[in-house]
Amino acid sequence: MQTDNLLKQVAFIKEIDKLKYIQRKTKLFNSDRHENDAEHSWHLAMMTIVLAEHSDKPIDVLKVLKMVLIHDIVEIDAGDTFMYDTQKNHTNTDEELMAAKRIFGLLPTEQAEEFISIWQEFEEGLTDEAKFAKSMDRFEPLLQNTSNNGGTWTEFNVPYQKVYDKKKAIKNGSATIWNYAENLINESVKKGILKKHVE
Amino acid sequence: MQTDNLLKQVAFIKEIDKLKYIQRKTKLFNSDRHENDAEHSWHLAMMTIVLAEHSDKPIDVLKVLKMVLIHDIVEIDAGDTFMYDTQKNHTNTDEELMAAKRIFGLLPTEQAEEFISIWQEFEEGLTDEAKFAKSMDRFEPLLQNTSNNGGTWTEFNVPYQKVYDKKKAIKNGSATIWNYAENLINESVKKGILKKHVE
Repeated sequence: MQTDNLLKQVAFIKEIDKLKYIQRKTKLFNSDRHENDAEHSWHLAMMTIVLAEHSDKPIDVLKVLKMVLIHDIVEIDAGDTFMYDTQKNHTNTDEELMAAKRIFGLLPTEQAEEFISIWQEFEEGLTDEAKFAKSMDRFEPLLQNTSNNGGTWTEFNVPYQKVYDKKKAIKNGSATIWNYAENLINESVKKGILKKHVE
Repeated sequence: MQTDNLLKQVAFIKEIDKLKYIQRKTKLFNSDRHENDAEHSWHLAMMTIVLAEHSDKPIDVLKVLKMVLIHDIVEIDAGDTFMYDTQKNHTNTDEELMAAKRIFGLLPTEQAEEFISIWQEFEEGLTDEAKFAKSMDRFEPLLQNTSNNGGTWTEFNVPYQKVYDKKKAIKNGSATIWNYAENLINESVKKGILKKHVE
């Protein structure tokens, strides 16, 4: 039984290597190289450990870590959806659910069910853990874009209001981080790297 | 106080982005692209979550996750040391300690001390958590090399005995995983991708 589990787990471990090939739109800090999903997930995990004290609600840090570490694995099949994509909404699509079932389904049944459930909890964003995890997911690209002279905002002409509406989710996890994030957004407008009106 | 902490934490979060530039000798599964330290750390974190049930001793999974997520951050200053480097031993060098103090030192004092202590615990490898974390760190490149037709073993002419001696550390964390790993090593010899004697 233990060996049977291990074989399934090794198959899963090999499969998720593909996350390292999924390119995000955002770029590394002070760089022109795109970030991939594995690097992004590692960074969110580090942010979770470091910033957990700012969560408005008590959170189970281990659960948040599981969320941020696995949250993008479905993109191995479904691909990365850009936060500001006007065609495709970044919601829990059928495609992503199929991906979750296939990829997490490589694991022993109990573990597969746990991972699917944690991923769904993250996507729904209703629990305190999911809210904090989503704060991290919104905060990282904000730090990147403000370090990269506007980054994807400039590259894809994303206007202030759209950024503000997406970033507001940070508030659901942490008032302190949101306060900092809101200042960053306002400073970006002053600096001209985020525009109230785009052509 | 909370805002003061946050400013220090953001400085740390930006600094550790550099881990994404540290290239390892090993390559991605079935690929010619080198893995970087951030991707590697993410993969070890995923392996920890998935394989924790095979630990011989009960472990604090959150602590192991912290270990594997931060274990290579010192390489931002100290660089990656190849496991089979004949000149430089991969031990807790003075250079790495200085790096730990500088980089973790960006964090608020209490957090900096916690991170330095967790990193040292990992390096010493004496606690059950450190033993399991080290198993993960040894197991990942074994899976990569066996998927990559010998990978770094072939590329750098690493003989069987050296590989076996390094990989034995897996046994300190998990008998089940070691049993699987030992089979992989033996199969590699049979396949000729790991040689008992190299020229």
